Amino acid sequence: MKLTTIRTAGTASGTTAALVDGEEVIELDRTEDVGALLRRGGVADAESLATGARHRLDEVELAPVVTRPGKIICVGLNYRAHILEMKRDLPEAPTLFAKYDECLLGARDDIVLPPESDRIDWEGELAVVIGSSVRRARGEEARAAIAGYSICNDVSMRDWQFRTREWLQGKIWADSTPLGPVLATPDEIPADARLVTLVDGEEMQRGDIHDLVFGPVDLVEYISTVIPLNPGDVIISGTPGGVGNARDPQVFLRPGQEVTVRIDGIGELRNRTVAEEVPEATASAEAPASAEGAGAATS
Amino acid sequence: MKLTTIRTAGTASGTTAALVDGEEVIELDRTEDVGALLRRGGVADAESLATGARHRLDEVELAPVVTRPGKIICVGLNYRAHILEMKRDLPEAPTLFAKYDECLLGARDDIVLPPESDRIDWEGELAVVIGSSVRRARGEEARAAIAGYSICNDVSMRDWQFRTREWLQGKIWADSTPLGPVLATPDEIPADARLVTLVDGEEMQRGDIHDLVFGPVDLVEYISTVIPLNPGDVIISGTPGGVGNARDPQVFLRPGQEVTVRIDGIGELRNRTVAEEVPEATASAEAPASAEGAGAATS
Repeated sequence: MKLTTIRTAGTASGTTAALVDGEEVIELDRTEDVGALLRRGGVADAESLATGARHRLDEVELAPVVTRPGKIICVGLNYRAHILEMKRDLPEAPTLFAKYDECLLGARDDIVLPPESDRIDWEGELAVVIGSSVRRARGEEARAAIAGYSICNDVSMRDWQFRTREWLQGKIWADSTPLGPVLATPDEIPADARLVTLVDGEEMQRGDIHDLVFGPVDLVEYISTVIPLNPGDVIISGTPGGVGNARDPQVFLRPGQEVTVRIDGIGELRNRTVAEEVPEATASAEAPASAEGAGAATS
Repeated sequence: MKLTTIRTAGTASGTTAALVDGEEVIELDRTEDVGALLRRGGVADAESLATGARHRLDEVELAPVVTRPGKIICVGLNYRAHILEMKRDLPEAPTLFAKYDECLLGARDDIVLPPESDRIDWEGELAVVIGSSVRRARGEEARAAIAGYSICNDVSMRDWQFRTREWLQGKIWADSTPLGPVLATPDEIPADARLVTLVDGEEMQRGDIHDLVFGPVDLVEYISTVIPLNPGDVIISGTPGGVGNARDPQVFLRPGQEVTVRIDGIGELRNRTVAEEVPEATASAEAPASAEGAGAATS
């Protein structure tokens, strides 16, 4: 089963969850997004709620598949082949950081390139969407807490990411992070599913989503040791090799490009990049309190 | 003006915002917490809404002053005197990391010490509560976006904090982080306000809250460059010297202690520490995927 969240003009929230039926989607009754469906009854309720309007999938406007996750927890370097090719040791614990709701975009929205960064990079990733509340989950309980999978492009402002020792400020820019196009239940994902990232049609990343050092179940076990995971929470599981910052020469996103992230069994994000228009008064202002070459001053 | 959030058995949310009137509090009409007040109309509405039951302040149960902030953004090392005594350069940009709602506690709740950590530390901090929506705010606009101040104890699991290169996993344990007791409007804060942290009555930290490298207005300017700040968002501004991890010998929290964090003009957090009772099946399990000495394997 595949579920999505579409923008609907007539609703208070502006969005409605929908069941994907081939080339069409069917609106779910009184369900503002896939997150609300998960918090209420879970994906098992979707077919009985699918009594609303039908639309062609290619004609709807897609919202982030979960519009306001309770938590977004992201994972650092996590692809085995990429870590080994970098001649690093495999990590013994996952590296975690956060994002916020205001970062999220729909699967076909424009990625906003703010004037304050000139090192904006792609990171295609598998997103894990939580379907039940768990704490210190192990094994089957952890597996059962996963409602399904989606795709995220963890767009990263590298200059801000590496300005201090914590990555957060390079990872939380407004309107930077597509999440979608659907939540695909685990049975939809083929055993040999690949993640591919393309920029203007050129392949930049390719990874086997089963090559994660910490797979989805490991991540649910690890994170739920620390903090409860709840329906609608999203774990973004890390990116394979091929990001622009690690290329020689480095490559960063420019306005007017198209970035595609595709995972077999889920679908694809396809987003144009647009330069953000900022009013004159603030556009000219450098980021406050951020002199040249701040670098690792706090590390 | 001081506002708080109290636990109220008869309400759907379980909490109600209240106006502090000397030794009493007055419930605000249909306002589930201080965050809801800020999102609706702001502190200016508090007096006209204060038509509910009166209680003695020392008899109510205090919830986190904002129960579900849209965002919690924390700042790393930020006290000038402490940075200089450590013989480090002053940072040119603030170091930012995150917390989640599930971490928060009321001002008199028990701090939960999980069995998975044996290096649990205090960090008394000034919290900045946002009252209006801003992006790329500068100067007066940034100052005006601050609804008021509160106190946070950013309790940190140091073994988990330093397990990887990102601090997040040591900062987001469930039921670890008291936030309160009130939101105090800026006029309540004296010019010489001090932050003091006590453990079992012994002074551990003392700082001048005006000694921040990045003060509240700087932080609103910096963070809102990256992402909108919205009513009810909370910025936790960093801790002065005197944390247990930096002492020689190191000192960590044990069950049955009392930790107090006090800021002039706001009030105090006073929390007991309690060992978390974990069911046998999971208590015996080491954190998954976290072998001995993982250290900085991913850095």
